[in-house]
Amino acid sequence: MQLTLKPIGVIRTDAREVPRHWTVSEIEGSLEVDLEYLEGLKDIKPGQRIVVIFHFHESPPFEAAMLVQTPPHRPGERVGVFSICSPRRPNPIGLSVFEVVDVHGPNVRVKGVDTYDGTPILDIKPYVVQ
Amino acid sequence: MQLTLKPIGVIRTDAREVPRHWTVSEIEGSLEVDLEYLEGLKDIKPGQRIVVIFHFHESPPFEAAMLVQTPPHRPGERVGVFSICSPRRPNPIGLSVFEVVDVHGPNVRVKGVDTYDGTPILDIKPYVVQ
Repeated sequence: MQLTLKPIGVIRTDAREVPRHWTVSEIEGSLEVDLEYLEGLKDIKPGQRIVVIFHFHESPPFEAAMLVQTPPHRPGERVGVFSICSPRRPNPIGLSVFEVVDVHGPNVRVKGVDTYDGTPILDIKPYVVQ
Repeated sequence: MQLTLKPIGVIRTDAREVPRHWTVSEIEGSLEVDLEYLEGLKDIKPGQRIVVIFHFHESPPFEAAMLVQTPPHRPGERVGVFSICSPRRPNPIGLSVFEVVDVHGPNVRVKGVDTYDGTPILDIKPYVVQ
């Protein structure tokens, strides 16, 4: 059984190079959410952290050789794909936690960007820790 | 541009009723990952927390009326869908954090289950907090 998703918007950033992970990013950008979903953003406020689920839209098709990878910042290690955040994974879904800087209508200004300009957004969720 | 995903496995639990969120669940279950992805699990160890991205496969099709919802545990409130964990959302993707109890080949025993038996798994990621 397959699942087909339609992006709800796109991530914009002026940065041409982005850090490998949101935990090490100070880069700002914007979530440009399609107008049809505007009302769903009404409780997103500056200062909050949000989870953004997105499509690794520039990743190559998955192959079995990608089940174990060497992360760029861990040379010499061979790590199972489900234990790392690599964009090369069976389903090309990414997850980042961004800090909300400001909200203007369908544009959510965020900090902590580790995604390329033009990355399709699939979902926005509250950041919940326990 | 649409994105088509193929589940990598399924979540199994004997529980017929599950809590509304992983933060309030003590329920155990198993991730049954398809054998073709087995090698990707090699670094998943008991005691770890993992992020599981899954398909809300029993959710009704999304409608604009679902952009603002009243969560069951917050009566009287009307909250934007991107600020809550409702299964009724533009793209029916769920996210839970489970604790790994044990790993036997493609079966990952987990605790904290808040999903129905048979839920399709889309991805497993490391749990990273900052």
